[in-house]
Amino acid sequence: MTYKSDIEIAREAKMQPIQEIGKKLGIPEKDLLPFGHDKAKVSAEFIASKRSGNDGKLILVTAINPTPAGEGKTTTTVGLGDGLNAIGKKAMVCIREASLGPCFGMKGGAAGGGYAQVVPMEEMNLHFTGDFHAITSAHNLLSAMIDNHIYWGNEQDIDQRRVAWRRVVDMNDRALRDIVTSLGGVSNGFPRQSGFDITVASEVMAILCLALDINDLQKRLGDIIVAYRRDRSPVYCRDIKADGAMTVLLSQAMQPNLVQTLENNPAFVHGGPFANIAHGCNSVVATTTALKLADYVVTEAGFGADLGAEKFMNIKCRKAGLAPSAVVLVATVRAMKMNGGIAKADLGAENVAAVQAGCPNLGRHIENLKSFGVPVVVAVNHFVTDTDAEIKALQDYVVEQGSEAIVSKHWEHGSKGSEALAIRVAEIADAGLANFAPIYPDEMPLLEKIETIAKRIYRADEVIADQKIVAQLKQWEEQGYGHLPVCMAKTQYSFSTDPNLRGAPTGHSVPVREVRLSAGAGFIVAICGEIMTMPGLPRVPSAESIMLNDEGQIEGLF
Amino acid sequence: MTYKSDIEIAREAKMQPIQEIGKKLGIPEKDLLPFGHDKAKVSAEFIASKRSGNDGKLILVTAINPTPAGEGKTTTTVGLGDGLNAIGKKAMVCIREASLGPCFGMKGGAAGGGYAQVVPMEEMNLHFTGDFHAITSAHNLLSAMIDNHIYWGNEQDIDQRRVAWRRVVDMNDRALRDIVTSLGGVSNGFPRQSGFDITVASEVMAILCLALDINDLQKRLGDIIVAYRRDRSPVYCRDIKADGAMTVLLSQAMQPNLVQTLENNPAFVHGGPFANIAHGCNSVVATTTALKLADYVVTEAGFGADLGAEKFMNIKCRKAGLAPSAVVLVATVRAMKMNGGIAKADLGAENVAAVQAGCPNLGRHIENLKSFGVPVVVAVNHFVTDTDAEIKALQDYVVEQGSEAIVSKHWEHGSKGSEALAIRVAEIADAGLANFAPIYPDEMPLLEKIETIAKRIYRADEVIADQKIVAQLKQWEEQGYGHLPVCMAKTQYSFSTDPNLRGAPTGHSVPVREVRLSAGAGFIVAICGEIMTMPGLPRVPSAESIMLNDEGQIEGLF
Repeated sequence: MTYKSDIEIAREAKMQPIQEIGKKLGIPEKDLLPFGHDKAKVSAEFIASKRSGNDGKLILVTAINPTPAGEGKTTTTVGLGDGLNAIGKKAMVCIREASLGPCFGMKGGAAGGGYAQVVPMEEMNLHFTGDFHAITSAHNLLSAMIDNHIYWGNEQDIDQRRVAWRRVVDMNDRALRDIVTSLGGVSNGFPRQSGFDITVASEVMAILCLALDINDLQKRLGDIIVAYRRDRSPVYCRDIKADGAMTVLLSQAMQPNLVQTLENNPAFVHGGPFANIAHGCNSVVATTTALKLADYVVTEAGFGADLGAEKFMNIKCRKAGLAPSAVVLVATVRAMKMNGGIAKADLGAENVAAVQAGCPNLGRHIENLKSFGVPVVVAVNHFVTDTDAEIKALQDYVVEQGSEAIVSKHWEHGSKGSEALAIRVAEIADAGLANFAPIYPDEMPLLEKIETIAKRIYRADEVIADQKIVAQLKQWEEQGYGHLPVCMAKTQYSFSTDPNLRGAPTGHSVPVREVRLSAGAGFIVAICGEIMTMPGLPRVPSAESIMLNDEGQIEGLF
Repeated sequence: MTYKSDIEIAREAKMQPIQEIGKKLGIPEKDLLPFGHDKAKVSAEFIASKRSGNDGKLILVTAINPTPAGEGKTTTTVGLGDGLNAIGKKAMVCIREASLGPCFGMKGGAAGGGYAQVVPMEEMNLHFTGDFHAITSAHNLLSAMIDNHIYWGNEQDIDQRRVAWRRVVDMNDRALRDIVTSLGGVSNGFPRQSGFDITVASEVMAILCLALDINDLQKRLGDIIVAYRRDRSPVYCRDIKADGAMTVLLSQAMQPNLVQTLENNPAFVHGGPFANIAHGCNSVVATTTALKLADYVVTEAGFGADLGAEKFMNIKCRKAGLAPSAVVLVATVRAMKMNGGIAKADLGAENVAAVQAGCPNLGRHIENLKSFGVPVVVAVNHFVTDTDAEIKALQDYVVEQGSEAIVSKHWEHGSKGSEALAIRVAEIADAGLANFAPIYPDEMPLLEKIETIAKRIYRADEVIADQKIVAQLKQWEEQGYGHLPVCMAKTQYSFSTDPNLRGAPTGHSVPVREVRLSAGAGFIVAICGEIMTMPGLPRVPSAESIMLNDEGQIEGLF
């Protein structure tokens, strides 16, 4: 039997006009700003008008550590959303927007797969509604205004050696990681060493995703620390007077984007920080608005539960006052086998022992998630090559952990394949079993917060941070930033900082290479191990095979 | 009497849904890709379907050298378009998109003024439909792929000292003019000196504006020379395999943007190279499509006629097979006075002698434009402070030059104020007086082309180019690029390369500092004098006062 590719299925989608999708949520046409016939932004006025309504139930979809086998977190998020709608629930999906950088590197599309996709897939993987471009512009306007401020006399007395604000580009471009700017003489300013990060790691991205509304956005932008003076006092974005123009650049980007699933159910796709180098969750505005419009909101957080879910709980939920009713942890038989030591080429053959050997990775995520006080159900995202014995081994393991694993076939069958999962998740959410709390309190010292995550989530023995980093954290505490949560930057491939250490490693240590204060977003970034805030392109980037075919369709993007 | 500001007038506009505007041109709703309720892209299918129709008449609006007094070229373009519609002609306007960079520096909006504006003004001055962001992304994807190619083994044997392709950002950021990239060790690549230009100077912008359709776009992108090998042979964009992905990134940006004037007449706003550092004209696709949809197409070219109009004639019309039926040269009494030596603060007082002293700048532009074989009419963009005697002095001067000057009050009265101009321009265009030809042939050697423009348009005595530049031009001729036209990069403020030399200077020389080959766009760029391809921000950038007001409206952008 042959299966259609994701893009073939997406091209056959019978999309409804976006106004029809809006109608299902009670959004009038005047409050939908169309982008083409199949995408729209929801007006700020409409969102404000819903603020007093009741909230639906929030369901987080997360996953085991990613492997080259593919787990299908977004696919499962979409499949579960469609499944809930199919069993008569009013549900919607909230996911993140895709970054251009990885699309031209080697990552596939970020809109689900098989019969559980969000459309229009091509545009979601390209410019979409321009939100990332707006974020890039706002970020780099601030950068230009800082250097311009220094150039014209430096009234704020910025210490040029202590400019903390870099530049960003939505591209994988290793050549820009570490650069010297302002060469070429007097008219180009004062030379200094700086660099570019990828847009998804921008504090502006984090602010857009955490801001409650446009006023909160401007306040947070103003709070960004861009540099320090010679007396070590911070220079804020509002000292440079960039916050107003940045807010103007971001005002449309703050409005959530409405699209649809292949089954014509509504989905918000808004914001897109990566979970390895940023906080990994779609926007608070999208999630809180969706909770007013639907009875069940299915959302995802990036990469494995050690990164995305941890930050969803400790940062997004804490800051926005959200509480998940249930967590769905996605696993696949294939990924279990890879965690059990099998190479990708050998995944085709049945291997129950390898599934069992890989299960501890899953088990640790279950245990971690439960420690936030939320009920966990494992979704086995079904591949057509999975054997009954392999599935049974996985399910048996999960039951031993005091949880349950439900096989879901949304990839192959859409909502018909995910009904069982949807029924059970709705039951769990309705039962009110959750008693959510972040795993560390605001008042815990910053280094202790890092240690708490490293020890309780990653199961490391220790955190290694040199004196400079410890002193920096202390200084921020003295300046009043000690109450902030910590956003860990770490490889997504392992619980540890070594991407090759699969399964459920113990006895490792977590080296903190650098810490950054995101005073506007409201967290401290701890960069651990070798992780980079600007990725590079692979030897053969997928961009080489992306092109228009003779029918004008896009090939090679997925 | 007090007058409303541009933004106050724009906010009072009674806009029609963009589908209604499309209907006036015979564009069905399915061929309009909406961006909000008041902007839309026209489908490539619709454009292709019109290819065999008859062409309307093309009218170019250009101006004297710009002064801080303001000339109102876009304002007059819009006013004339509305005037033509008001006298019963089927007319449309084609102008360029605005760049974000100058918006945050000190330039006002780029959508006209008074009662002759294109709307929605705020969005046109911000992200609009994302075309510039798409151009920036496509340009920088190629940059990243070049460095990535070198990083992974440099199969094409690129000489790292001879990478010609820089990066771009749509921002005024002098710190990025001259940088060193790839510092920080092995994993960041090979350090080399490079820099950023502003997006409007990107060859990708020029290609988008000169390409006939999407296939031509991809071919031209492939033709870009990105570097040279050790044997001096060129490395093309298609050698790096970036042309396909760049085309995908640009496929939507290739579609012209439809908006409306305050009087609900259709306007295309598409592409936006600056005329001082690039070729200064809106896209060929927009202009050629407009000529199929309307009987009169009013378009503009950037800055003064020495830059924009010269390039419109010698580059755009030559390449696209276009021929203008008439040229409207915009002048103001105030600008004549500034050319006559009066400071901006003293423009309020009547000063007939100063008007007369400044007129030679106008006279030279008239003469230059006539040398292309096109009839010229001067539009006196009326300011309410102009006195009758001053206007008469200007008109008398123009008559002496064998042309005519018509006062137009579109800024104050919209189409009611521009009817006289519209009637006369239509008469001239209908009379078929034009006998258009570029002022130099394809086969002229490159240096001679530069000299022709410098001597015949700028009235310089000589071109100064050192041996390295002469040798470079010779080499390009040997490589088969000798037939290309030349795109001069020069200050907009003077016929000369000295921005302070107003009026109609003679006896000056034109120093060529650098030449760049744009093999994809199809021209040679000659950078003359001190002009920069990356502007800086002023001491007090307008960004400092751009913000949302309490009603959520944008303040300070105009």
